[in-house]
Amino acid sequence: MAKEIKKVSDIVIRRLPKYHRYLSDLLDRNVDRISSQELSGLTGFTASQIRQDLNNFGGFGQQGYGYNVQALHTEIAKILGIDKTYRAVVVGAGRLGSVISTYSGFKASGFEILAMFDKNPEKVGKVIDGLKVYSLDDMADFIKKNKVEVGIITVPKDGSQKIADDFVAAGIKGIWNFAPVDLVVPEDVVLESVRLNDSLLTLSYYLTEKK
Amino acid sequence: MAKEIKKVSDIVIRRLPKYHRYLSDLLDRNVDRISSQELSGLTGFTASQIRQDLNNFGGFGQQGYGYNVQALHTEIAKILGIDKTYRAVVVGAGRLGSVISTYSGFKASGFEILAMFDKNPEKVGKVIDGLKVYSLDDMADFIKKNKVEVGIITVPKDGSQKIADDFVAAGIKGIWNFAPVDLVVPEDVVLESVRLNDSLLTLSYYLTEKK
Repeated sequence: MAKEIKKVSDIVIRRLPKYHRYLSDLLDRNVDRISSQELSGLTGFTASQIRQDLNNFGGFGQQGYGYNVQALHTEIAKILGIDKTYRAVVVGAGRLGSVISTYSGFKASGFEILAMFDKNPEKVGKVIDGLKVYSLDDMADFIKKNKVEVGIITVPKDGSQKIADDFVAAGIKGIWNFAPVDLVVPEDVVLESVRLNDSLLTLSYYLTEKK
Repeated sequence: MAKEIKKVSDIVIRRLPKYHRYLSDLLDRNVDRISSQELSGLTGFTASQIRQDLNNFGGFGQQGYGYNVQALHTEIAKILGIDKTYRAVVVGAGRLGSVISTYSGFKASGFEILAMFDKNPEKVGKVIDGLKVYSLDDMADFIKKNKVEVGIITVPKDGSQKIADDFVAAGIKGIWNFAPVDLVVPEDVVLESVRLNDSLLTLSYYLTEKK
């Protein structure tokens, strides 16, 4: 299928994982095809928004038939890069690092975690959840030698920018950041942050507003 | 300070934790006052957007002076409800539940975790990170007896809607959800979800796009 992929807005991109999630559920339920109206009922997006979103990537629907669930699922997975494998390392061999390292979504999304790094000498050399913990001093060499593309930061605020800088210097192409900091990275490095605390404060806001 | 709080859009609300974060940093660095231009340099929001955002809550700046960092920090904390305490329970005594239960941001944000719940009989009765693990069967009673307002879901996809339903039936006012599901809750219950997998797929998309 030859199609032109236009530059798509970040808002649309961030809806794709949700489409992917619902399409996976539909496949699990052996649903063959689905209309934009039905997808709207599931996702909460309007049918017209759904058609527009999917049009951005060439459009996979047929008038009067709807979308072939399997084909749409495969296409969105391809767009999301799930069929590609990215080699990753985790910095921070603490609890959060351990959750992330054993996170089942990784393999399903094409990420392979090779090692953990920590500055604490007591953790270095240990094997946690099947992953060896190395010293931060050895990180740059490891990344270069193993062609690691993704770095995951699970350390607290302090020190996180230094780790991002080290990642970038060693050739990392994307960072998944859990530190509550807006990291600064060059434009050609992808930065994706999970903001637990911002999410918690948003919950707090709405709870307080409703009181 | 008497001020009218207008109904504010979710997009603005979700910027407040970021303001709060930067203002905390400024306080740590003993900065007394800051202009919207300087805040713009820090946050990446435009100065005019910042003035508009803060205007929503009554506006705390003074022409030619800027914002008093301490006063603005205090006001935003109050708007976010950080000065209020919410009693919470965690469902799922696994790794993620353990990370969440020991998460330092909780106390700082005014959340107090009282207990964990799990369906696994081998975990029930144990004390994990200082929190007792109870059976899911006892959850409704516990919530009512202890006036718990917030429920945190750290279990996998399957079963998460049932837990949300049980939370709501027991009187929970807000849910912090980590399961990769769009939970359905009544309108008067606040639902805030952290979507680890959606974030990971977004990272995958941008990595793939740049290739």
